[in-house]
Amino acid sequence: MKINLDRIIFENRKSIKEIEEGTLLSPKFNDEGLIPCVTVENETKEVLMVSYLNDLALKKTIATNKAHYYSRSRKAIWLKGEISGMTHKINEIYIDDDQDSIIFVVSLGIPTKGGKKASCHVGYKSCFYRKIKISENKLQLEFTEKEKSFDPEIVYEGIDNPTKI
Amino acid sequence: MKINLDRIIFENRKSIKEIEEGTLLSPKFNDEGLIPCVTVENETKEVLMVSYLNDLALKKTIATNKAHYYSRSRKAIWLKGEISGMTHKINEIYIDDDQDSIIFVVSLGIPTKGGKKASCHVGYKSCFYRKIKISENKLQLEFTEKEKSFDPEIVYEGIDNPTKI
Repeated sequence: MKINLDRIIFENRKSIKEIEEGTLLSPKFNDEGLIPCVTVENETKEVLMVSYLNDLALKKTIATNKAHYYSRSRKAIWLKGEISGMTHKINEIYIDDDQDSIIFVVSLGIPTKGGKKASCHVGYKSCFYRKIKISENKLQLEFTEKEKSFDPEIVYEGIDNPTKI
Repeated sequence: MKINLDRIIFENRKSIKEIEEGTLLSPKFNDEGLIPCVTVENETKEVLMVSYLNDLALKKTIATNKAHYYSRSRKAIWLKGEISGMTHKINEIYIDDDQDSIIFVVSLGIPTKGGKKASCHVGYKSCFYRKIKISENKLQLEFTEKEKSFDPEIVYEGIDNPTKI
């Protein structure tokens, strides 16, 4: 895909028929101006993360083929991998039936300070490195990634952890 | 997984270390009491839909192994497939690093009124049946599913379309 940022126009939402069955791109942003985005690895189809985009983050992603996301805590657009090197190069962008959620299909970059290709700031490839299991009639999380792809203390040295309690 | 609904307890969020690296399930619901959920087909790893869950929808899903979602427009929990037959049987449930999004890995049911196994009310298998393409320096949507899996006018006869402009 190659298109200039100022040529990217999202269409107005006029009819349910056009939104669901048409070829016009008319994404629906929520009351906060955001749309949820699922990031999937192109090669493995693995879900890597769930995030939000605003209008400009989606347009910048389309214009550059590099995933840009919107940070709700920092209230700012960020280019994925700018600090870490773990970029998300866009292969495809999908939108759903009512055009209120997005999929980025991406190829992963490698941490500039060392490690294997990965996406999650904790050190794992995917943010979804744990699944729910039931053990002795209690819920627990089980790790499905057995080791980290990089050392987050090296890759994100001096950077605040984005996770909030 | 087999556990009674009243045995399902979500832990309080006490430390970032425990949330990210621990084995306690402590999902973070947003200001509206919701958490985004990505539904993935077990057999193909295809992303089928993006939705929201509230506390009880997640607990009912875990207790029954049948996906329950929360409808923001109807302000109610719904059992996927109750009307159509296109159920989502749970294989696995993943949660992400900061525990504010969920993946349901599911097997699909078949429409009771006829058709192939599918998930999307428009008639396609996945809700993500279109991708963005650039044609003559303009954005367009291209269909990636070439034909519908069922006829929505038969399967959802007399039911309002959930899509809103």
